[in-house]
Amino acid sequence: MKLRVVVIGANAAGAKAAAKAKRMNPHAEVTLIDRGNFISYGACGIPYFVSDTVADVKELMSTPVGVIRDANFFKKVKGVDVITGTEAIGIDRQTKTVQLLGNEGSKSFSLEYDRLVLATGSSPTLPPLKNRELVNILTVKAIEDAELLKEQAVAGKAACIVGGGLIGLETAEALKKKGMKVTVVEMRDQLLPGVLDPEMASLVEKHIRQNDVEVMTSCRVIGFDGTLEVRKVLTERGEVPADLVVLAPGVTPNAKLAAEAGLEIGATGAIAVDARMRTSDPAIYACGDCCETTHLVTGRKTYFPLGSTANKQGRVAGINAAGGDATFAGILGTSIVRVFSINAGRTGLTETEARAQGYDIEAVLSPAPDRAHFFPGAKPIALKLVAERSTGRVLGLQAVGEGAVDKRVDAAAAAITFGATADQLSHLDLAYAPPYSAAMDNLIVAADILKNKLAGHAKGISPRKVKQMLDEGDDFILLDVRSPAEHAEVGIEGATLVPLGILREKLEGLPRGREIVAFCKVSLRGYEAQKILEAAGFENAKFMDGGIMTWPYELRRGALANEPEK
Amino acid sequence: MKLRVVVIGANAAGAKAAAKAKRMNPHAEVTLIDRGNFISYGACGIPYFVSDTVADVKELMSTPVGVIRDANFFKKVKGVDVITGTEAIGIDRQTKTVQLLGNEGSKSFSLEYDRLVLATGSSPTLPPLKNRELVNILTVKAIEDAELLKEQAVAGKAACIVGGGLIGLETAEALKKKGMKVTVVEMRDQLLPGVLDPEMASLVEKHIRQNDVEVMTSCRVIGFDGTLEVRKVLTERGEVPADLVVLAPGVTPNAKLAAEAGLEIGATGAIAVDARMRTSDPAIYACGDCCETTHLVTGRKTYFPLGSTANKQGRVAGINAAGGDATFAGILGTSIVRVFSINAGRTGLTETEARAQGYDIEAVLSPAPDRAHFFPGAKPIALKLVAERSTGRVLGLQAVGEGAVDKRVDAAAAAITFGATADQLSHLDLAYAPPYSAAMDNLIVAADILKNKLAGHAKGISPRKVKQMLDEGDDFILLDVRSPAEHAEVGIEGATLVPLGILREKLEGLPRGREIVAFCKVSLRGYEAQKILEAAGFENAKFMDGGIMTWPYELRRGALANEPEK
Repeated sequence: MKLRVVVIGANAAGAKAAAKAKRMNPHAEVTLIDRGNFISYGACGIPYFVSDTVADVKELMSTPVGVIRDANFFKKVKGVDVITGTEAIGIDRQTKTVQLLGNEGSKSFSLEYDRLVLATGSSPTLPPLKNRELVNILTVKAIEDAELLKEQAVAGKAACIVGGGLIGLETAEALKKKGMKVTVVEMRDQLLPGVLDPEMASLVEKHIRQNDVEVMTSCRVIGFDGTLEVRKVLTERGEVPADLVVLAPGVTPNAKLAAEAGLEIGATGAIAVDARMRTSDPAIYACGDCCETTHLVTGRKTYFPLGSTANKQGRVAGINAAGGDATFAGILGTSIVRVFSINAGRTGLTETEARAQGYDIEAVLSPAPDRAHFFPGAKPIALKLVAERSTGRVLGLQAVGEGAVDKRVDAAAAAITFGATADQLSHLDLAYAPPYSAAMDNLIVAADILKNKLAGHAKGISPRKVKQMLDEGDDFILLDVRSPAEHAEVGIEGATLVPLGILREKLEGLPRGREIVAFCKVSLRGYEAQKILEAAGFENAKFMDGGIMTWPYELRRGALANEPEK
Repeated sequence: MKLRVVVIGANAAGAKAAAKAKRMNPHAEVTLIDRGNFISYGACGIPYFVSDTVADVKELMSTPVGVIRDANFFKKVKGVDVITGTEAIGIDRQTKTVQLLGNEGSKSFSLEYDRLVLATGSSPTLPPLKNRELVNILTVKAIEDAELLKEQAVAGKAACIVGGGLIGLETAEALKKKGMKVTVVEMRDQLLPGVLDPEMASLVEKHIRQNDVEVMTSCRVIGFDGTLEVRKVLTERGEVPADLVVLAPGVTPNAKLAAEAGLEIGATGAIAVDARMRTSDPAIYACGDCCETTHLVTGRKTYFPLGSTANKQGRVAGINAAGGDATFAGILGTSIVRVFSINAGRTGLTETEARAQGYDIEAVLSPAPDRAHFFPGAKPIALKLVAERSTGRVLGLQAVGEGAVDKRVDAAAAAITFGATADQLSHLDLAYAPPYSAAMDNLIVAADILKNKLAGHAKGISPRKVKQMLDEGDDFILLDVRSPAEHAEVGIEGATLVPLGILREKLEGLPRGREIVAFCKVSLRGYEAQKILEAAGFENAKFMDGGIMTWPYELRRGALANEPEK
């Protein structure tokens, strides 16, 4: 008898699982069911369709050679039967049947399976909000949203994005590009919470503001105002005018079907699966946004839905459902976003997450050009590398800047997967030529500084700590060791200039008893200064992590400033 | 007493070692000696100075903030004494002294050391060539070469590059950009020998030819012709007119000083060192282009000089010379080059190298757009992944194309460092968003196909093998499973069109007994076709690796062709 594989949910994970199951076992009968009318589309592309970066919504539903991935395509090419517009409303695990109900109010019917794959996805996490039903309050999840959103993106009108996460920021850019007045409202005290640490997120926020998008953090939305159409977003901190609202909150796994069938649900609220993507019922697999996975750094179960993970899990679920044997070890929470001309990414744990998980950590901020500094087009990127203090194991990398951030995130992701230490990271044989990186790649420089910190050679303190010391009037010397020209152009109020090149000669003039914090543009000269001071017997010398380039607060602008004053 | 550290050679490795030694041990007396007049310059940037991409040669000798790294800089900032224009002519290991001789014919003098670091670099490997002394036969090694080369790069005149390696190709592009007629002459039967496998190199060669650079492979240079100035390059295959010749052969380690001092020289001809960069004399370290290192895949000693490695080794040698403890595990032979608008890189072993080392391997060719195919600006890249058959361990990656090649090389380098298998590579949590990659990154797609091949599911054969079968008139069906439009535009002569979408319906028309090789644009549909054929009982179905996109031979051009006919 033919193996019957039923897959519920035909987006990334489900479509992949179905196609893979059929390839693995060509004699299996594979049926792919979806409650929507479109299958296997690139939801991640929706903001780019809204901004006209992608001209036709069909491109999001096509293969790279332009064939629409519809039911016909799945039947003809993949040998998979597709039933759209049909929701799975129940699973009878005893009889191995799925209850299905057509959207058009048709009678329910049932389908028998030998192996069932759940790929039911996720839904936006929406608390009850006053007047949520007003027209023009949209989400960015389904392909139908995309066309509606594009229609409503009218130049000159006001848009409010609720949620400053990855999709929220992509959508903010898209609507700005369409000429709208855009405000991003975020409940937490920073943009990209759960993705970046505060000082890295502040670099993104600064860039977004420079592109004329309003940002309101620590701001909870209560509801909406308007008659028929939305006109205002009501928040704890006042009203935001809005002709269009995009809700871009976090997402919740669609685990109800599984829970009602008695399958184990994890503490994360997502369907519990083993490394073979098998649920607590050996005949049922789950993959994609509906299930939990293992974090490769912590070893703990986590919920981190993403299209790239969905594809990998779908492949594993499909192989196993078809009788094969594959495993999926887990994820690193790798994420990336482009907003205007800035790229922001991370892999592994942030400092905030690592501390919350109980790690004793050391961190470094390291900004530098993304390729040989003499090569035209080199653009700055700032890295933040976090390591466990006792073992030197790298726990995570964050990267923000106009340059090639993705490359550093990917290399770090690969290294962290295998438990790389800062020392191992610093010796990676990365591809070097002037168009691609400096002879010492940004990742290697950051790892070297981290090693110096772990070994106690480099004594860095964070910009946040320096700001606090300045604000509280602490008795210390903030030493600017850059050149007089750099110092004149832009600086930190209250700093004393002693260029590194003459520091050895000027040591006599510095008070021995006081704490000295040196800084430069990126922190390398700051570190040199610390070493020079220590060699001369100064016992309390430090440098400021990341230098001026990652200083998230106001800077003193001088005569040579080439950025307009805000 | 103060520790005396003497470093010989003040380019990447030596300059790094000296600065690091001083930072590690601020009370050490560190002396850096170089026979040239310039120190710590970016020799890798020379081609970009020649092409005017980098305006001022000083940029190659400056820190990122524009300070020239000269003797004064090293003294003031690094606390290192620099002696330039001075050659080390002998080492007395008994008395721990180095014999030095000034370039200006001054008397020799000696310097005592407690720790000596050799960073004597490498020299172009030049066989005796007839009339080598003619004017305008240059190399691209020292900063002095750069200015001379730029002077001689006269539009309309003819240049001949001897050597089709990394520097040869960079220089070819630079001279072409200056308006010269450029010919690259390479002794071996492909460009980038020792860097890429032949079919990957042929993609680079095609691109270079399209940019109007002549390429002559399997062509050995005998000598030169001219009176005073060079006019012709004499090769085994005839004469090449040349008003300017650039010699860009491989390099040989400068190990004479070490050998004469009785230090152990490895089988590679470079100075033997341990993981602490220590030579056979415990007081003497070596780093950079003069020493050998360990290949992390084979575990064997290798010679692979590169600026990025020199910096890492210099740091380790400097730390250890100053009394610290650091190790350098080895390299992967990672290399990358941009020529015109194509990027070509690799890490680990090529198929050629892996087979030569005795590995039983499986390989895959996988071309695809470098980001979400619907995202504007997506550009193709072709990956070649090589794995050990018995273990699935990834041995190497090659990547060629106009898109982001460096990112895939770096991620693979990190993974290969830790012995990643194809399965582990395919599950890396790489950064995904449409501006950066498809939901399944190119590396992951390639690893998935490789897994399918290792498991015996996917039966790929190389374009080279298909070409041979065509040429020899073998009895097989070459099945083009692309769309009729794709087929009409460009194809392989002798192929039969059966689009994948109707293959299931057309099975009756295909002969069961014969070998069938399916192909498409990139090979994914080709693989689907193999699976469909197998499911229908065809026992000898295969697909062609890499599809049309990595077919290195002539293509049948059709009416829809948008590339100009050659």
